[in-house]
Amino acid sequence: MQLGMVGLGRMGGNIVRRLMQAGHTGVVYDRDPEAVSGLVREGAMGGETLEDLVAKLEAPRTVWLMLPAGRVTEATVQQLAGLLEAGDTIIDGGNTFWQDDVRRARQLRSRALHYIDVGTSGGVWGLERGYCLMIGGEPEAVERLNPIFAALAPGQGDLPVTPGREGRDPRAEQGYIHAGPNGAGHFVKMIHNGIEYGLMQAYAEGFDILRNASSPALPPEHRFDFDVADIAEVWRRGSVITSWLLDLTATALSADEHLSTYSGYVEDSGEGRWTVEAAIDEAVPAEVLTAALYARFRSRQDHTFAEKILSAMRKGFGGHIEGKKPKGDGA
Amino acid sequence: MQLGMVGLGRMGGNIVRRLMQAGHTGVVYDRDPEAVSGLVREGAMGGETLEDLVAKLEAPRTVWLMLPAGRVTEATVQQLAGLLEAGDTIIDGGNTFWQDDVRRARQLRSRALHYIDVGTSGGVWGLERGYCLMIGGEPEAVERLNPIFAALAPGQGDLPVTPGREGRDPRAEQGYIHAGPNGAGHFVKMIHNGIEYGLMQAYAEGFDILRNASSPALPPEHRFDFDVADIAEVWRRGSVITSWLLDLTATALSADEHLSTYSGYVEDSGEGRWTVEAAIDEAVPAEVLTAALYARFRSRQDHTFAEKILSAMRKGFGGHIEGKKPKGDGA
Amino acid sequence: MQLGMVGLGRMGGNIVRRLMQAGHTGVVYDRDPEAVSGLVREGAMGGETLEDLVAKLEAPRTVWLMLPAGRVTEATVQQLAGLLEAGDTIIDGGNTFWQDDVRRARQLRSRALHYIDVGTSGGVWGLERGYCLMIGGEPEAVERLNPIFAALAPGQGDLPVTPGREGRDPRAEQGYIHAGPNGAGHFVKMIHNGIEYGLMQAYAEGFDILRNASSPALPPEHRFDFDVADIAEVWRRGSVITSWLLDLTATALSADEHLSTYSGYVEDSGEGRWTVEAAIDEAVPAEVLTAALYARFRSRQDHTFAEKILSAMRKGFGGHIEGKKPKGDGA
Amino acid sequence: MQLGMVGLGRMGGNIVRRLMQAGHTGVVYDRDPEAVSGLVREGAMGGETLEDLVAKLEAPRTVWLMLPAGRVTEATVQQLAGLLEAGDTIIDGGNTFWQDDVRRARQLRSRALHYIDVGTSGGVWGLERGYCLMIGGEPEAVERLNPIFAALAPGQGDLPVTPGREGRDPRAEQGYIHAGPNGAGHFVKMIHNGIEYGLMQAYAEGFDILRNASSPALPPEHRFDFDVADIAEVWRRGSVITSWLLDLTATALSADEHLSTYSGYVEDSGEGRWTVEAAIDEAVPAEVLTAALYARFRSRQDHTFAEKILSAMRKGFGGHIEGKKPKGDGA
Repeated sequence: MQLGMVGLGRMGGNIVRRLMQAGHTGVVYDRDPEAVSGLVREGAMGGETLEDLVAKLEAPRTVWLMLPAGRVTEATVQQLAGLLEAGDTIIDGGNTFWQDDVRRARQLRSRALHYIDVGTSGGVWGLERGYCLMIGGEPEAVERLNPIFAALAPGQGDLPVTPGREGRDPRAEQGYIHAGPNGAGHFVKMIHNGIEYGLMQAYAEGFDILRNASSPALPPEHRFDFDVADIAEVWRRGSVITSWLLDLTATALSADEHLSTYSGYVEDSGEGRWTVEAAIDEAVPAEVLTAALYARFRSRQDHTFAEKILSAMRKGFGGHIEGKKPKGDGA
Repeated sequence: MQLGMVGLGRMGGNIVRRLMQAGHTGVVYDRDPEAVSGLVREGAMGGETLEDLVAKLEAPRTVWLMLPAGRVTEATVQQLAGLLEAGDTIIDGGNTFWQDDVRRARQLRSRALHYIDVGTSGGVWGLERGYCLMIGGEPEAVERLNPIFAALAPGQGDLPVTPGREGRDPRAEQGYIHAGPNGAGHFVKMIHNGIEYGLMQAYAEGFDILRNASSPALPPEHRFDFDVADIAEVWRRGSVITSWLLDLTATALSADEHLSTYSGYVEDSGEGRWTVEAAIDEAVPAEVLTAALYARFRSRQDHTFAEKILSAMRKGFGGHIEGKKPKGDGA
Repeated sequence: MQLGMVGLGRMGGNIVRRLMQAGHTGVVYDRDPEAVSGLVREGAMGGETLEDLVAKLEAPRTVWLMLPAGRVTEATVQQLAGLLEAGDTIIDGGNTFWQDDVRRARQLRSRALHYIDVGTSGGVWGLERGYCLMIGGEPEAVERLNPIFAALAPGQGDLPVTPGREGRDPRAEQGYIHAGPNGAGHFVKMIHNGIEYGLMQAYAEGFDILRNASSPALPPEHRFDFDVADIAEVWRRGSVITSWLLDLTATALSADEHLSTYSGYVEDSGEGRWTVEAAIDEAVPAEVLTAALYARFRSRQDHTFAEKILSAMRKGFGGHIEGKKPKGDGA
Repeated sequence: MQLGMVGLGRMGGNIVRRLMQAGHTGVVYDRDPEAVSGLVREGAMGGETLEDLVAKLEAPRTVWLMLPAGRVTEATVQQLAGLLEAGDTIIDGGNTFWQDDVRRARQLRSRALHYIDVGTSGGVWGLERGYCLMIGGEPEAVERLNPIFAALAPGQGDLPVTPGREGRDPRAEQGYIHAGPNGAGHFVKMIHNGIEYGLMQAYAEGFDILRNASSPALPPEHRFDFDVADIAEVWRRGSVITSWLLDLTATALSADEHLSTYSGYVEDSGEGRWTVEAAIDEAVPAEVLTAALYARFRSRQDHTFAEKILSAMRKGFGGHIEGKKPKGDGA
């Protein structure tokens, strides 16, 4: 099949590559002409403008957007909507807020355009491992593009199918699902990332406790000087907490068990925040997912105003003068 | 009555002063002779050594320790135990771990000595406002010293007795209670401080959100530039969240609404930690009290090892290179 | 001054009463004619319909809405907007989401109507104690109604002004503030309630640990059987954690220290949720306020799906068969 | 090699089986003679009493205890200590508190006995997959038993060694480590389980939000009716959150996506609690690991006393009468 791709960053470029490896045709556009010509050398057809890209696609056209969520994606959807014709399809494969999908799909439907939201997991490893796809949209539109989704997904590979799945949707066993109507794809991807935050923080706290087990504040007979690189490696083998995230941690610790090149300043993308907001809307207590988000917020500040309030109260009732912050890193 | 006091810091000295104002006699000792002579000038009798203090007390003696919890208090209890006689009483008024009280009381009982643990709240304001006392020990020993406790407690003052208390222990209405056997006094004080941490953090987070409502990351029409000093003042009057801690916050914010002299580095004493451990022993979910403790832990570090683990994973799966930490204070 | 009041529930009725006690005139409307006639007997003027209420007010009119936040308030604002004239003012004194204020004020301004949002704290005690008012709107509109706000606020009373406030807004010292432009009033009230949740949960957890200190799961020498009613009373006197919420807790525990008439099912209103969402928008780690909200969510469920997932995993890796839930109440 | 095993439950029996499969000799004892005779039929030598077990072992003897942590293990260690001779070794492979290891090792050393603590992960799958072993003790004692540990560990298998591990301890790559002196093995296992709690709770909350996305409290256009079994399956393939725990979840959801046979009552073993206590001792903020523990505490109660305190306060300040708890399960 032929697919238009707008946005040739780390994810968009590799998606086109994986599709071409499977025999599909990529027509690509990026505002950076270098990115376009690079993929043209690898066999894609290039568009010089969005209009040009649309012109080079055969109807019914499919254009996949792989752009930063928010303003850029929104503007491109609106611009494309003016260029496409009835029966064409826009796919948003970025990290879009699912309520934007619900709104957009309604708008585009009034113009007889299809809209599909695809949550895409796999990161820099997707070209090789395949992408886990969580898809939202009308059944017909999703089914028409099944060859594209099947080619991008990891497929079953060596990983056995979960027992007892007879009669369930076989697409899940290949690594992609049609999760529901518009918004459902990005909703599931959002929860995926929310869980990801929680998992990451669980490992991170565990290694933090191991690392600080040598703290001079502890009684000498209760101190340990652990080799966290070896611990990460051993947990990969036969333990209950094996996971891909642990594999990645083991790789990082094996390169430098002090992680001294990392500042500890941790970004968050929208999904972690939206996950908490979804939990609140549903009145689901999501303590762990929220704590993981807040740990990132805190990591980006030197001191919070809250902490100064605490010190001010302590001085007020107890005359405590808080010490200065030490210059070194506490870890 | 006559009371021996060991430890003439901010709390110990004022306790003696309040007792003398009520007509009691203080016999005082501190390893700093200046502290002793200061109180002698105010009317106390001074001891040059612990032995001398004991010698100057009439049997049955009562010695109140107001020392840093832990090693110093423990050593002094043990030393005093060798100097006192059957029927004498040791009071530990510091922030001792309640399980140490249980152990000590058992040891001292075998020598016919009494032991009383007194949790003492009031901070630098106790001399004027009185001290809220939470007392653990054998009923007879506690009752014998009732005049001391009554003099230290705030008394009923202007604050009306809670309706419906007819038939309950009237001492609570004067500001002191006999909470139970040894350890009970410090247990109740521990929970008091645990709650204190939670209350402080609740206010602190609220003011932090108010303060950051002017953040340039917000859409302009959703930004506010609040006067947090006025907000603290108004909440003191007729709102649901009036409290003494809020009064103290209002005072600090009225002096400097940016709290620029506070580093934001916040200490914790043992009680917050022991409160969480008691919750765990009882399987009580104490989310708020624990989060308040952890916020203090976090305040004392530049970056945690946990945060570096997060960054390392993010680089591993997504190729993300985390930004540098900004130099300025995030607040 | 003359004030129209729409909504004569617990809060609206008492606000009119307090205004009339101060010499102001109330013109009242409620869809329940009984509520109207009740207040008419107390001296108010009654309207039979919203149109009638508007007709009975002299220009420039002021209509205060004290209605359930959300749909009812929104519909009434829109209906009133069609009845009022240029220069008139609508006050929303309910628990409205502050972003709705921002939107409404913009709409009404285009019709030359004023809009004021007033966060109102005081509950069932406001008639007697006065209401703490947090006000958002244009300065002229707010200043014109100063006599109304001053009459509703508690005034300075016995409570001394915080030291160092010379030169700051004296209204705060009377119990009301003009917090900023539209939305600011409800934003500050929202944070007030968010803090309230955190304070309440801190006390609640502390008493829970005290209560469970008698748990048979603890070693006998580490068990205590505390009188939580006496503890609440004693903490009211001279301790660091005195507050109005503690006074209320002491009252409840003095009536029944087992609180056996309370189910433990705890509602939340919008403010706690919006507080967390504001924290997330600002990237402020609000652990305690969030944990307090989630404790309420959890209180309303028998078991979460999350807990069943945990049990299913435990069976999967360890063969653990989880026990049945005991019938009795764990507390 | 020859190994004595005391305790033939799910773990102990399979450890002996895996050792015998590797050519080692098991001498077994359990207070249930059926358990002994069962393993004797599979080729082990049986002891009728602990004395008999010791008598059947050749010096230097090694006895592995696989018993419930706490009193049973402690008593058996003490009894064995009286039966063994200088140079013999006791291994505690259960879930013992690491500070007990530190104490016991010191005691046994004074009798010239060796002590090794082994944290053992693998659950019911260990016989087939091998056990991940975290070992604490003196180097010589641990090295002497290397053939035992190597046989129990999973070995490298298909799982590639983490890149960059050249020069690091090759045992980690086989699935076992010598983590440090006595206590270190159980400390690392404790953290493993602490992380496990956090990971489990992260998945559980995510699925809870997915499940409640169909809640009637949400606006109809924002509701989704997700197939959580398909979602679990798809996340196993190419996503960032693949893990063994997710595989187990997928299996459970594929059998019954409502998990209706699970009560939602979730036990915790000591490790989760000790992990939090270790974090507190080290002043490490472990929000996620603690929240995961508290979720289990909460799951075992109908209502907490804390929740009743909240309701009582709400009635006190707002006149709120809380609703009754619904009979059905909220999930």
